[in-house]
Amino acid sequence: MDNPIRRSKQILKFDGNSFKQATDEIAVEFPFTIYVDGDEFATMVCTPTHLKELVIGFLASEGFIRRPEEINALSIDEARGFAYVELVQKQTINKEFFSKRFIGSCCGKSRQFYFHNDARTAKTITSQTTISIQQCFNLMEQMQHFSADFQLTGGVHTAALCSTEKLLVGYSDIGRHNALDKIYGSCLLNHIAHRDKVIVFSGRISSEVLLKVAKIGAGIILSKSAPTSLALDLAHDLGITAVGFIRNRRLNVYTHSQRVIQAYKK
Amino acid sequence: MDNPIRRSKQILKFDGNSFKQATDEIAVEFPFTIYVDGDEFATMVCTPTHLKELVIGFLASEGFIRRPEEINALSIDEARGFAYVELVQKQTINKEFFSKRFIGSCCGKSRQFYFHNDARTAKTITSQTTISIQQCFNLMEQMQHFSADFQLTGGVHTAALCSTEKLLVGYSDIGRHNALDKIYGSCLLNHIAHRDKVIVFSGRISSEVLLKVAKIGAGIILSKSAPTSLALDLAHDLGITAVGFIRNRRLNVYTHSQRVIQAYKK
Repeated sequence: MDNPIRRSKQILKFDGNSFKQATDEIAVEFPFTIYVDGDEFATMVCTPTHLKELVIGFLASEGFIRRPEEINALSIDEARGFAYVELVQKQTINKEFFSKRFIGSCCGKSRQFYFHNDARTAKTITSQTTISIQQCFNLMEQMQHFSADFQLTGGVHTAALCSTEKLLVGYSDIGRHNALDKIYGSCLLNHIAHRDKVIVFSGRISSEVLLKVAKIGAGIILSKSAPTSLALDLAHDLGITAVGFIRNRRLNVYTHSQRVIQAYKK
Repeated sequence: MDNPIRRSKQILKFDGNSFKQATDEIAVEFPFTIYVDGDEFATMVCTPTHLKELVIGFLASEGFIRRPEEINALSIDEARGFAYVELVQKQTINKEFFSKRFIGSCCGKSRQFYFHNDARTAKTITSQTTISIQQCFNLMEQMQHFSADFQLTGGVHTAALCSTEKLLVGYSDIGRHNALDKIYGSCLLNHIAHRDKVIVFSGRISSEVLLKVAKIGAGIILSKSAPTSLALDLAHDLGITAVGFIRNRRLNVYTHSQRVIQAYKK
């Protein structure tokens, strides 16, 4: 395959005074379709790296599998963008539920789950892990350092699974959720403990991002960006500490602040 | 309904020296499910404003309707986040195709369409509209001025339909595609001519954004951000001028530069 991350392109650049021809680096966006037991299940666009991790993480996140051993066969056609998955146990019922709206029987607590699969797979986090302000800044810096190569194109998001001390595994992808699915898949494939960890993310904390964090089992999400209201409702209910706008030695703690050690240590 | 755009929340803010309680404005994220002729069709998360425009634009973008008159009845349950659409002509075939991977019979030209509905609804643009560098800067400034209220939360995208001179209609939404669908729906509902126009967008030019632009029929897309490779392939094939990284009186022209007047006029 060509460079799966970025592609050079001749463009016309206006620098404030005049136009000139220039070579620019463009983030590759790749359509990728996953078949499960012969049925077309989902088509996503992604950065075409670590496709195996992506498939495993996506299927785990959607509740199809809990471990890679629940997959009988997985073949990936990288050239054309197809993955063919054969499960050990056929799961026709789950496929029907996929992306179907979840309507709680009461109009209270379960309102914020909007898909059946999420209500089934996102669990409340009881992690006792705590983190200091300085560790938040350090991890954000490590994530940004890790993703420097990708940032050339200006078009990708990066997610990293971290201990409170250091980055353990990270992925960049043009799809924000794909970066998280690749982490999940990598943990499952390589038996990396993913509970009680910290997720550091370059993008906005949306409900979908928050749900992925809950599924991975991390108790803390750190982001450079803003959260949404639904993400914070979910973070509150699922016991996740959401920290946003980590920039210039400032940050906001939105939920479950008990995990953030409030003494600032230089 | 409460403020549909943002919600105040008490948070813990670290300002570089110490923590303090503060009130922050959080972007509202709202699950919204569209039923078509009794079947659950799609669930999205959105900023809950202009839901009628969103439904009409989404259905037009997916090729279900071309005009609002093709809808027999539309009711929106704003409190619970449901829309019920009844079409004049039932379209079971289209629903089957929705989000199904499009596989061209040859492996060349049509490769970049990855969904059937896109291949059917995104048309090549032959617009003769041209734009100057200064107009690009002006329109970006107008779009940013328009969205200032939304930007308080840091979590929304804005799209605007413009002539080369001025902003005609704009929407902000936490979902980048929703902002474009609201534009499309508004044009259809209010009989605003939407062909031969310019779209100004706050976010990245992804393939999905580019396809929405093609469906609306605009020949020029202006963005503050980066494009992806697939978006540029589509822009090239569909005859759309993609201009990105419009910042600090600089910009990049990626495709169909014949529409950008290259003389810089102060």
